[in-house]
Amino acid sequence: MFFHDKRLQYHCKPDRPDPLFACKLQEVLGGQWGEISVFMQYLFQAWNCRGPQKYRDMLLDIGTEEIGHVEMLATMIAQLLEGADADTTEAVAKSSSAVQAVLGGSSPKDMMMAAAMNPQAQIVFGQGAAPCDSMGNRWTAAYIVSSGNLLADFRMNVTAESQGRLQVCRLYNMTEDKGVRDFLSFLIARDTMHQNQWLAAIEELRADGLEDTPCPSSFPQELEAKDFSYAFLDFSKPGTESAEGRWARGHAPDGKGTFQHIVEPKPHGPVPDLAGRADPRWYATPPVPTPPTTI
Amino acid sequence: MFFHDKRLQYHCKPDRPDPLFACKLQEVLGGQWGEISVFMQYLFQAWNCRGPQKYRDMLLDIGTEEIGHVEMLATMIAQLLEGADADTTEAVAKSSSAVQAVLGGSSPKDMMMAAAMNPQAQIVFGQGAAPCDSMGNRWTAAYIVSSGNLLADFRMNVTAESQGRLQVCRLYNMTEDKGVRDFLSFLIARDTMHQNQWLAAIEELRADGLEDTPCPSSFPQELEAKDFSYAFLDFSKPGTESAEGRWARGHAPDGKGTFQHIVEPKPHGPVPDLAGRADPRWYATPPVPTPPTTI
Amino acid sequence: MFFHDKRLQYHCKPDRPDPLFACKLQEVLGGQWGEISVFMQYLFQAWNCRGPQKYRDMLLDIGTEEIGHVEMLATMIAQLLEGADADTTEAVAKSSSAVQAVLGGSSPKDMMMAAAMNPQAQIVFGQGAAPCDSMGNRWTAAYIVSSGNLLADFRMNVTAESQGRLQVCRLYNMTEDKGVRDFLSFLIARDTMHQNQWLAAIEELRADGLEDTPCPSSFPQELEAKDFSYAFLDFSKPGTESAEGRWARGHAPDGKGTFQHIVEPKPHGPVPDLAGRADPRWYATPPVPTPPTTI
Amino acid sequence: MFFHDKRLQYHCKPDRPDPLFACKLQEVLGGQWGEISVFMQYLFQAWNCRGPQKYRDMLLDIGTEEIGHVEMLATMIAQLLEGADADTTEAVAKSSSAVQAVLGGSSPKDMMMAAAMNPQAQIVFGQGAAPCDSMGNRWTAAYIVSSGNLLADFRMNVTAESQGRLQVCRLYNMTEDKGVRDFLSFLIARDTMHQNQWLAAIEELRADGLEDTPCPSSFPQELEAKDFSYAFLDFSKPGTESAEGRWARGHAPDGKGTFQHIVEPKPHGPVPDLAGRADPRWYATPPVPTPPTTI
Amino acid sequence: MFFHDKRLQYHCKPDRPDPLFACKLQEVLGGQWGEISVFMQYLFQAWNCRGPQKYRDMLLDIGTEEIGHVEMLATMIAQLLEGADADTTEAVAKSSSAVQAVLGGSSPKDMMMAAAMNPQAQIVFGQGAAPCDSMGNRWTAAYIVSSGNLLADFRMNVTAESQGRLQVCRLYNMTEDKGVRDFLSFLIARDTMHQNQWLAAIEELRADGLEDTPCPSSFPQELEAKDFSYAFLDFSKPGTESAEGRWARGHAPDGKGTFQHIVEPKPHGPVPDLAGRADPRWYATPPVPTPPTTI
Amino acid sequence: MFFHDKRLQYHCKPDRPDPLFACKLQEVLGGQWGEISVFMQYLFQAWNCRGPQKYRDMLLDIGTEEIGHVEMLATMIAQLLEGADADTTEAVAKSSSAVQAVLGGSSPKDMMMAAAMNPQAQIVFGQGAAPCDSMGNRWTAAYIVSSGNLLADFRMNVTAESQGRLQVCRLYNMTEDKGVRDFLSFLIARDTMHQNQWLAAIEELRADGLEDTPCPSSFPQELEAKDFSYAFLDFSKPGTESAEGRWARGHAPDGKGTFQHIVEPKPHGPVPDLAGRADPRWYATPPVPTPPTTI
Repeated sequence: MFFHDKRLQYHCKPDRPDPLFACKLQEVLGGQWGEISVFMQYLFQAWNCRGPQKYRDMLLDIGTEEIGHVEMLATMIAQLLEGADADTTEAVAKSSSAVQAVLGGSSPKDMMMAAAMNPQAQIVFGQGAAPCDSMGNRWTAAYIVSSGNLLADFRMNVTAESQGRLQVCRLYNMTEDKGVRDFLSFLIARDTMHQNQWLAAIEELRADGLEDTPCPSSFPQELEAKDFSYAFLDFSKPGTESAEGRWARGHAPDGKGTFQHIVEPKPHGPVPDLAGRADPRWYATPPVPTPPTTI
Repeated sequence: MFFHDKRLQYHCKPDRPDPLFACKLQEVLGGQWGEISVFMQYLFQAWNCRGPQKYRDMLLDIGTEEIGHVEMLATMIAQLLEGADADTTEAVAKSSSAVQAVLGGSSPKDMMMAAAMNPQAQIVFGQGAAPCDSMGNRWTAAYIVSSGNLLADFRMNVTAESQGRLQVCRLYNMTEDKGVRDFLSFLIARDTMHQNQWLAAIEELRADGLEDTPCPSSFPQELEAKDFSYAFLDFSKPGTESAEGRWARGHAPDGKGTFQHIVEPKPHGPVPDLAGRADPRWYATPPVPTPPTTI
Repeated sequence: MFFHDKRLQYHCKPDRPDPLFACKLQEVLGGQWGEISVFMQYLFQAWNCRGPQKYRDMLLDIGTEEIGHVEMLATMIAQLLEGADADTTEAVAKSSSAVQAVLGGSSPKDMMMAAAMNPQAQIVFGQGAAPCDSMGNRWTAAYIVSSGNLLADFRMNVTAESQGRLQVCRLYNMTEDKGVRDFLSFLIARDTMHQNQWLAAIEELRADGLEDTPCPSSFPQELEAKDFSYAFLDFSKPGTESAEGRWARGHAPDGKGTFQHIVEPKPHGPVPDLAGRADPRWYATPPVPTPPTTI
Repeated sequence: MFFHDKRLQYHCKPDRPDPLFACKLQEVLGGQWGEISVFMQYLFQAWNCRGPQKYRDMLLDIGTEEIGHVEMLATMIAQLLEGADADTTEAVAKSSSAVQAVLGGSSPKDMMMAAAMNPQAQIVFGQGAAPCDSMGNRWTAAYIVSSGNLLADFRMNVTAESQGRLQVCRLYNMTEDKGVRDFLSFLIARDTMHQNQWLAAIEELRADGLEDTPCPSSFPQELEAKDFSYAFLDFSKPGTESAEGRWARGHAPDGKGTFQHIVEPKPHGPVPDLAGRADPRWYATPPVPTPPTTI
Repeated sequence: MFFHDKRLQYHCKPDRPDPLFACKLQEVLGGQWGEISVFMQYLFQAWNCRGPQKYRDMLLDIGTEEIGHVEMLATMIAQLLEGADADTTEAVAKSSSAVQAVLGGSSPKDMMMAAAMNPQAQIVFGQGAAPCDSMGNRWTAAYIVSSGNLLADFRMNVTAESQGRLQVCRLYNMTEDKGVRDFLSFLIARDTMHQNQWLAAIEELRADGLEDTPCPSSFPQELEAKDFSYAFLDFSKPGTESAEGRWARGHAPDGKGTFQHIVEPKPHGPVPDLAGRADPRWYATPPVPTPPTTI
Repeated sequence: MFFHDKRLQYHCKPDRPDPLFACKLQEVLGGQWGEISVFMQYLFQAWNCRGPQKYRDMLLDIGTEEIGHVEMLATMIAQLLEGADADTTEAVAKSSSAVQAVLGGSSPKDMMMAAAMNPQAQIVFGQGAAPCDSMGNRWTAAYIVSSGNLLADFRMNVTAESQGRLQVCRLYNMTEDKGVRDFLSFLIARDTMHQNQWLAAIEELRADGLEDTPCPSSFPQELEAKDFSYAFLDFSKPGTESAEGRWARGHAPDGKGTFQHIVEPKPHGPVPDLAGRADPRWYATPPVPTPPTTI
């Protein structure tokens, strides 16, 4: 069960409206690696957790925090969209006729607004934040993962915090608004924490003897086609730059094998042949002419 | 530029048709963590790579291999779909009337086939493999990642090989067909290699001084809201099981901070208030009655 | 900012596992009218609210409650998926050979499981709840609405609670498990409350003088093409059953017009003609042959 | 069966081309609340109607009319896209060098067009209307509803006409073209009619004794968890602004209960615990280390 | 503007309900090549047509007819879903205990219905037709095409009528219900007509001198990289079966070139190299270590 | 199995960066008719081919080539995105204050970049190519076709090469960069070849006696509702321009019938009536009031 505190986790007030930046900021609200993705992902992992309670609790802690991040982003975006239209209009009205010529065909006001932002911010969302990314793609649960296997899922969580922090850092470079930058510095700090948190959780899984590489570790490794378990296959020619990397020599990180570099990968299977085995009821093209048929 | 060898990378021939398993196997062909996802992801990361050539080359090697995995899965699925319909029909024809009673309403043959499999395998794909997951959802590029930052992306790649191996291991438990299991043991082995490969590549990035935790490591960490960079916030009550984990105490994995456990997280921001700042042209509901208007 | 209480809002424990019903129950978790849709919709409406605080607060109250409904559904589904596989297998093993003949081609165990449930419940989600509907379609934010206009949005909210209650009532008829039915009776009760709540909120908007029919009420109605504002146009022939309804006679519900029934709707515009106005650079087919061209 | 009259229902000719506005206008053609959504929704509700003929007929009347609205919007958009490119180019050619400097990197013509509009209007649709919203998202049937329950569906229809009219009113404010505004005034008038129509149809359903609040009204209300059927739960703290609304006191709109305001909502369920009940075949992480296994 | 005749274009009444077949039949209503796709495609092509009126008129004729095909399919599906549930239940009640053992875990009634059909037919659509394909994927306008170039589009139309007829023929083989087969024989006949119609329309475009192969024919062919315009490149080894086809020798169908078969395709471009040209603000991994930075 | 040659199939180097054009060029990489669509389509058709080997081999040849086209487009786009940001910034810095006034509200740099391009090129893809179309819609396998019937599929392939060539020709007109135009002239040439190739393959299928019009040709045509197999139905009034076309008179292209033009199409079916046949458990609205019920 959840409760809401009307106060925000951190302050998020821009120095001034900036509808263009509002549209960009949508990426980390409703994009593939935005805050909706992480809160939904962590909560589903928690609700489906059949492992030790400390993992479930930790997932609930962070998943709950992330809903509050969506709230702050939505609030920030709504403020960035405020009042901006009138200002822009005024600026255009004062501008030189050369500029108006460029804006041509339609009215300068409309053209400027159209060029400046996602039109749905006004037509659909009425100056409000949207459950979308920076291109207006609606958020989809196709982004998230909850497999039941905590190692597989925590690796996804490290990824999410890495891609997310990367995107916020890029956005930091796209604005000079001090209020916005202060807010982003909070998100970046939390992503630093959360990258570390998931890396620590992966260590903990191993220390607890619950999961290890290769994941899932409780599949009996002797059932693998072992000749291929530590072989690096070089499929891109000419040149063998890839042989210079750590992945092509020495002990594998799982401590269970040694990397080999295979310069000329061979096919181990035959040329497949499906010819002549089509069921006539489905009218797939057969290898030889066949008479009309139904069943 | 690419070339194709008509022979398969490994043998993939089932002992007998099994249209039900064919439909399940689609998950690792065209699902979120299927082979289409990994080949597309690795190739895009390669084509967009602005880092050292060994990384680009390695990405091309593995991305190219994975196209061949899609090919084997498609071939396996097409064979599992072969000839099965007739067999099923025959079995039903011979079955007792009690069974036919259960199958009621429509013909036993149709009901059995409907119950047994995705109808698109016949109606849409004519006994062929589909670019879909096990529920018939078409593959979408929303699954994949290519950010330009190799650490962020390699973490996604470790995830993909973990989720993928997990799914293939589950599928291994869902069939007793020796031909299918042999083929799956090859995919599992390659996923063992590829998990190790990406973990090694992450080590290499660090050894090369190119990337580190927190990712992206070239954002100046002094610009973060530092009070929050290593704080674990406990948002789920009652009980503090989450405090027992590695993520709540000691040095953070990045070696740059020490975890704190905050039992009572506080709001640091105000109650937000947007009331009264709506532009009347967009007809958002205002705090007080307003007269009709257009511009 | 949000907090989580580890206890559930209501009890939700099935008498016994039922993986088939688990898959159906997904509809009201992650379908178009499921609990994810309502909590996301209400929270976005709250965060974007520029009207009186009582509306914003009410939206936050209900949006927060609904996250807890997702939590209960996820927990119920995870339990319904538990242990069922083994039971089913055992039952099949004991069954007559006639039955096994029907199940033909592949192993009875696999066929039964395949026929019984969404394969992703095991392959992808490992016996856990999924952010999907009953057909495995991932939830998408394309389902939700936050327009800034509270009357337009509250009408959507009444709809959501009506469609949602309808679906839960249907699901109630699809199970005889007392534990499940008890849980569903709670969801049905909350939907009763919430239908009433939104209808009351619509009354309140009108009482406050903020919004009314036609919505948005602050667009000047004299700018409409008034001849068409209260005319029912009969486009389906023969017969005029539609003339018998309340919508074709008497005062309109908004109190601002009188319905007319137009038996023979007329075209008021011309035959459109775009012929000959294609820009040659885009190679749309012109009305007469044209020479090759580039710019 | 359908027939087409080549004349348009209303005139829709812009005073001059405006490719920017064309792209915005797409929202009410192919967006979530556009005319494709309403015609498809009403026709499916009609075709699936098992209630009295007057409702089915009325649905067919309005569904058929709305196809003609899509036609007018498509025609308007195709005209707004005409000839505009050349004009814009000419304006740019005449503009000052300062402006050209801004447009930098690529040619002014391309940059202007890119900034001005959805590139698919030319590349994909060749100056034609598209089955998309204003951001280029293709229309999806995920937007529409046909539940078989007319009250639940008519509430969706009131919503659709409210959101639709809201969007058209916003678009009215985004253009000063008299031809476009005349056309929009027709759409606004029809939305006025259709809001009233669906409200009247809801009255009629009640008058006919077919449906009522709570919907569906033929589920026996005594089976609900009655303690929660009229309780407003206050989940957002601090402050109780939400207690000031109509939804927290007095008789509920359905006339069957009285609202209560619950200041401190309590959990009525336990802390859920799934630990230890994972089937080992799916490799979900267990609470204690387990040996490797397959089946 | 459109009109509706309440009578159906053809009779469509099944001999008896068959909910399984109903779900399959959805494929040709709301799938990629279903009737929604063709009516929407033809109407958009008509509305966007800038060519001779005879083409626009013909597109309107067929597009309008196809709406009526959706209507018939929806009606057929609603009837196939009728009354079936009770029958199935009764049959199960009478069946042997062996069968009930198979159905295990949950009630036979539910299991049978679950195994038999898409659960949304009841939960979401209440025994009505849905705007979906046979797997429950909602129809999307991503399926359709309207490019402005009639030759490119008519080729799509031939495709649509071919894929559509193929699917209906397959469905014909999946049922023995005479009423259903009679109805399908009508759809098959119309697809025969429409394949012929689009082939004839392609002839007409050429006869009118408007379009030809290669399409678009008004791009000046001398601007192509002519060495590659008629060369068949053999990228799949070993073996040259592809050299046996018509596409590798003789005059090309456009009458403008002669096919060549290139046994060893060569790369004509260099190894690409993006290394070192990343803008530091976006934190893409560079080829050498770089200091922290922001802008 | 696949191999990669690091050299590109053709040279693809722009004369200078052009981020706007980069975003447009995405259409033919990851749009509905882009290179991802064709390579995936041809490979799936090959892997599922049960016809003669020459067709399978040919599909593999061209499918493999097309992966290399995606590679070139990705490389071209990455280069077009390079270095452009700084240049644009500099140009803006030098521009007149009138221009800066237009750019108003936010910083000129941000506004210019926002107006100029898809923000995901930086935020999400870090100056890299994306698996998206020109509006940022991710590629989806819903675009592609593999039916097993080679005639139905080759018609789709002709379509794909026609729509694709059309789009590349349009893009050719949108740039003046000689490097880009040289590269596009290669793609246009290959599309010329491939249109011809698929037309030749269709001839070959007929010559081999494998498929013909109407497709699928092995469905017995005497089972069609023959009265409707060659009838052109005129559903759009007034005027009969459509009667002037080749599709309304003379022998049909399949040589098996003669076109008829039906001026007044008649309904051949009844008014459908579903009233009163709703199962009460699903709460669809019935024709008369019914008492509350559950099962």
